[in-house]
Amino acid sequence: MNAEIIAVGSELLLGQINNTNARFLSAQLASVGVNVYFHTVVGDNPSRLEKVLEVAGERSDLIILTGGLGPTKDDLTKETIAKHIGVDLALDEVAMASIEGYFKRTNRVMTENNRKQALVLKGSEVLPNDHGMAPGMMFTSGKRHYMLLPGPPSEMEPMFTKYGIPAITTKMGEQAKIVSRVLRFFGIGEAALETKLEDLIEKQSNPTIAPLASESEVTVRLTARDQSEEHAIKLIDELEAKILERVGAYFYGYNETSLINELAMRLKGRGLTIAAAESLTGGMFQEQLTSVPGASAILKGGVVCYSNEAKINIVNVRKETIEENGSVSAACAQELAENAAKLFGADLGISFTGVAGPEELEGHPAGTVFIGIHQKGKPTITEKLQLAGTREINRIRAVKHGCRLLINSLKE
Amino acid sequence: MNAEIIAVGSELLLGQINNTNARFLSAQLASVGVNVYFHTVVGDNPSRLEKVLEVAGERSDLIILTGGLGPTKDDLTKETIAKHIGVDLALDEVAMASIEGYFKRTNRVMTENNRKQALVLKGSEVLPNDHGMAPGMMFTSGKRHYMLLPGPPSEMEPMFTKYGIPAITTKMGEQAKIVSRVLRFFGIGEAALETKLEDLIEKQSNPTIAPLASESEVTVRLTARDQSEEHAIKLIDELEAKILERVGAYFYGYNETSLINELAMRLKGRGLTIAAAESLTGGMFQEQLTSVPGASAILKGGVVCYSNEAKINIVNVRKETIEENGSVSAACAQELAENAAKLFGADLGISFTGVAGPEELEGHPAGTVFIGIHQKGKPTITEKLQLAGTREINRIRAVKHGCRLLINSLKE
Repeated sequence: MNAEIIAVGSELLLGQINNTNARFLSAQLASVGVNVYFHTVVGDNPSRLEKVLEVAGERSDLIILTGGLGPTKDDLTKETIAKHIGVDLALDEVAMASIEGYFKRTNRVMTENNRKQALVLKGSEVLPNDHGMAPGMMFTSGKRHYMLLPGPPSEMEPMFTKYGIPAITTKMGEQAKIVSRVLRFFGIGEAALETKLEDLIEKQSNPTIAPLASESEVTVRLTARDQSEEHAIKLIDELEAKILERVGAYFYGYNETSLINELAMRLKGRGLTIAAAESLTGGMFQEQLTSVPGASAILKGGVVCYSNEAKINIVNVRKETIEENGSVSAACAQELAENAAKLFGADLGISFTGVAGPEELEGHPAGTVFIGIHQKGKPTITEKLQLAGTREINRIRAVKHGCRLLINSLKE
Repeated sequence: MNAEIIAVGSELLLGQINNTNARFLSAQLASVGVNVYFHTVVGDNPSRLEKVLEVAGERSDLIILTGGLGPTKDDLTKETIAKHIGVDLALDEVAMASIEGYFKRTNRVMTENNRKQALVLKGSEVLPNDHGMAPGMMFTSGKRHYMLLPGPPSEMEPMFTKYGIPAITTKMGEQAKIVSRVLRFFGIGEAALETKLEDLIEKQSNPTIAPLASESEVTVRLTARDQSEEHAIKLIDELEAKILERVGAYFYGYNETSLINELAMRLKGRGLTIAAAESLTGGMFQEQLTSVPGASAILKGGVVCYSNEAKINIVNVRKETIEENGSVSAACAQELAENAAKLFGADLGISFTGVAGPEELEGHPAGTVFIGIHQKGKPTITEKLQLAGTREINRIRAVKHGCRLLINSLKE
């Protein structure tokens, strides 16, 4: 089954928001073996939407539309599709009751325009909206399937996972199993990785190998197709072993994980706690660590010591250390990491100090970063980085390097 | 001039990354009066890309492509366009020298496949890449303009701003001026705002009014067209005044700003400093504040007091306060805000304590948040929120509410 995702909304064409829906749907569809060959974005304009539907109808079996199901006057997706495929709209009683219930539950008065949201394509399978008002729907016209989903990700994502995917796999019937696995690497560039895997990439067929650089990381997606899921997994296992033999030193995890998540799992697994002293990263390390549920078992706390006063008065860095070496120094990073662990009574301490940019600081260019890692009973280690991104990218990379250093020091 | 943005990359169709390039380019093009009517995403597949180019050629004057200019074998954008419009590729000496220089500067060895990046469409205007290797280019074929840009946003964005926009406006010549302004609101829903502005939206023509909900905020974009820029601005000023008369209480800023940015500007303007004690937000407030360049003049520092120990031992919250009220309480928020300001010697202190979720805490449901705001010489204020999002959304909203409270307390 070949699919295409059409997002409807002028806000996308004006650059006000990202089309995160296309990304979410694509990843979900890939996981059940549906090929997505195109994404299209079109504005709240019925005639341009109709032309897009014509093009899509010629090349795709499954056409998924997001957006334009809301209560306001520029929400015209249902009306345009109804006209395009020649069906009427009808009020869905279940959806109407759910909309009225939603207003009651949140103690708000229903404005009249909300009634429009309960209209569906006559004869379609209605997909309930458990997190909002506009229902979704799936309509089959000949060999072509149309799925309409609401625009807000908080409504669309749970609806698609719970009701959309089963509706699609039912239509697909039996077919070859597809198994996909993403290997994640940090500390190696895309071209360098591809050069090391060149012969494997060259002769790929099943499984396929797709390297991708993003956010200072490289991922490699392996995808195998086979009648037997077990055999598809075996094919991927074998290829993975070959790849890790060459670039395993940079490998840190599988699929949707992240460096911070891998770090959190390892700390949890070992029953270790951590504290942080963050200067240039301004709290980013701790913010990311606390985004993982259950972080309170790991993170004792930390200090955002953005000023030298805070480094000296709160984190107890010796005044002479900063006078002699500056705050952008290995010596300062070392004391910050050690003192953070002591102050909060944690097993580990991490520190970040440096120059995020755009201006230089203490004679160091933007992108100079020192990271300190202290682990009880071991000598404190520090690492100097010279990053070359924007202010924000330097901060993000610094945090990733910190995670890598921590993960490595937990290995030993 | 009507434009269309084509992003090339199978990683987009697999849902590995968001098409942030389309958003960035759309916003930039809107600001110079280019209408973007379509976004398309297609994989690293020459025959599907060629079909997409055919469709685009029929409906758009300016076709901007991103991605597929890199060194690896699946980077085929240039080759496909060259074939589609019938031009050759030629080595650009300037780009080649720049690529060699890039490897020298970063102390890396150039692999042979990097040479491919210096090939450009013969006769095109080359757009230098100041942050990476693959140059961009603009090629005019009859009435149709093709612009090719690299995929990584860190390279594409500065290239487009510095070289791409001037290349486009030169081709556009004279035409009606378009002025656009975004009004940003926090604390009111989209439907409620639209109901209050219904008659204005109903009779809109010039300027147009486009409300949009995103990330717990609502924005309204006003766009006017006129031969005179001055008159277009006047039309927008008049409409803005009418809108703010009705919903001004929720308005906080214009265009690409954010609550944290507005807060930073107000603190800078008044020469005030701030410190923070963050429990449930885990450092997010400080991380956001330090993403603003020059934050060191505002943020003295803060504590991520994720554990009760940290609240008591580091931020000096009285043990009895927590024993009697719990850590999720107005009393705790008050002491955290006051003590953070004292500890770091700041003019203001802000605190966040509560239950991010998914689990409840101290008998409070997920989403219960207390914020404390202390300003020297004023009584400390606290506010209780009951949020209803996921863990991450609750944290983000808590920080936004904190900014709103601070901005309001600076007004008085």
